[in-house]
Amino acid sequence: MTALDVPSGRSRIGPTPGPGDARLARLSLNQMTTNRWTVAEAVAGCVRAGLPAIGLWRGPVQETGVAVAARMVTDAGLRVSSLCRGGFLTAADATLRGRALEDNRRALEEAAVLGTDSLVIVAGGVPAGSRDLAGARGRVADAVGLLAPYAEQCGVRLALEPMHPIYCADRGVLSTLGQALDLAESFPAEQVGVVVDTFHVWWDPDVLSQIARAAGRICSFQVGDWITPLPADALLCRGMMGDGHIEFASLRRAVDKAGYHGDIEVEIFNADVWAADPDAVVATLASRYVAHVLHD
Amino acid sequence: MTALDVPSGRSRIGPTPGPGDARLARLSLNQMTTNRWTVAEAVAGCVRAGLPAIGLWRGPVQETGVAVAARMVTDAGLRVSSLCRGGFLTAADATLRGRALEDNRRALEEAAVLGTDSLVIVAGGVPAGSRDLAGARGRVADAVGLLAPYAEQCGVRLALEPMHPIYCADRGVLSTLGQALDLAESFPAEQVGVVVDTFHVWWDPDVLSQIARAAGRICSFQVGDWITPLPADALLCRGMMGDGHIEFASLRRAVDKAGYHGDIEVEIFNADVWAADPDAVVATLASRYVAHVLHD
Repeated sequence: MTALDVPSGRSRIGPTPGPGDARLARLSLNQMTTNRWTVAEAVAGCVRAGLPAIGLWRGPVQETGVAVAARMVTDAGLRVSSLCRGGFLTAADATLRGRALEDNRRALEEAAVLGTDSLVIVAGGVPAGSRDLAGARGRVADAVGLLAPYAEQCGVRLALEPMHPIYCADRGVLSTLGQALDLAESFPAEQVGVVVDTFHVWWDPDVLSQIARAAGRICSFQVGDWITPLPADALLCRGMMGDGHIEFASLRRAVDKAGYHGDIEVEIFNADVWAADPDAVVATLASRYVAHVLHD
Repeated sequence: MTALDVPSGRSRIGPTPGPGDARLARLSLNQMTTNRWTVAEAVAGCVRAGLPAIGLWRGPVQETGVAVAARMVTDAGLRVSSLCRGGFLTAADATLRGRALEDNRRALEEAAVLGTDSLVIVAGGVPAGSRDLAGARGRVADAVGLLAPYAEQCGVRLALEPMHPIYCADRGVLSTLGQALDLAESFPAEQVGVVVDTFHVWWDPDVLSQIARAAGRICSFQVGDWITPLPADALLCRGMMGDGHIEFASLRRAVDKAGYHGDIEVEIFNADVWAADPDAVVATLASRYVAHVLHD
């Protein structure tokens, strides 16, 4: 019987890759993709499926305890490909801003304990009631400057994540890889880099040249598809690779060519994925990763 | 009693500008904003409200008859700021492609009859089942090359509209003003220009420099707001100016500075706007235009 992929219900392409399969050597499960799982469950799920790495989120990690989570991952022999997430650095109010900076310092410390060198930074949106996009972007740049030296002390890089312009107003004012690199390049590469997430950057006419430019600055490579019609909740409009419109292999090759040979995280916010059995989600993403991301 | 704006229900800012108000000298109603109105009704609505121009759509114009619609507009003393729309030029299939080119030639002829010099071109999305975004973009460029000489013969420019990346997969593969200009600049300015629509370009970190670069190429300037949370239907997520996150005046000044002194169209796809009384929509947009677009 052929296995069925989730959430599409389509037949699996070929046998499901599993533990020991060399093609999974760079595959990481971003914890949000199986968000019903605790850290312990996600770690066990990665081991069962033969994934060597996991991308963690602060919420579930804090529920588990940072040191406990770090031990779980180490004991399982997994790498932590990144910690999601710091950022939200656009507040104009001094108190809120101070609080955000402090929270980002804690996030850097947590990343260090977890043994990852990348803290994903989501810039934050334009504050409620403001229309000053340029001002919000300026405050992100200032905050990154304040955090960068501490990041290096922690042995962690601020991984600036350019986000799809659909989120510019309310979530992430860094909108293109070029813009994120303009900011990152103001700082040493040991302090500030970028995330390349296919979902966020696939539409960009300059994406291939900007990935080349990002050589030495790529902290994280994340994959997820752009599906249509867009689900009603714009936050949940990512899809399993192969269910949408993105051609992954050319982006993966560009990232490889730029010298990034680290883990490749699958990060999918999608109500149907979240409703599916998490083990089936991991089996599907391993199969789709081989078929669509590695495939040349 | 203070008038209430639609669809927000917020109190109007100051008296509603009306016929003879010099501040309305460039204001155009894009017919889609009041899509319950026929051409005749929209023309009459513009006259009642003191708007000197209208942006027409092919569907309602064809229902009325192109020559009849042209006469209505002329008799009412209105300008036609643009005709929406041509484009959808990404089909790989030769038959579909030939049909699209032929349809665009008809659209150019209709624009000429209507007395507008701008046919808005929506590029089209990636064809169903394809993930070849670069190929789709290449076919748009080829098609523009095939249509450009005929556009000049018609006395109409192909007004390439860069669309928000939210529509890249299924509607418009031209995603930034810079990308649209790269294509437009391959042709004489009499043949190919661009549309600047605030809704589509506001998020772009390069928008001000690209508007400056667009000098001599701006065929149309359209305004509409980006609202959050996004309505469930991604096609209908535009808002009345002032109800969202866009700072209009700086974009308007940049367009002015680039030498565009033509009409400014209000184009809003929004279920709540469409459900409101169209005269109330026009009154609101005239007021909001003065407050948010003209305001310095």
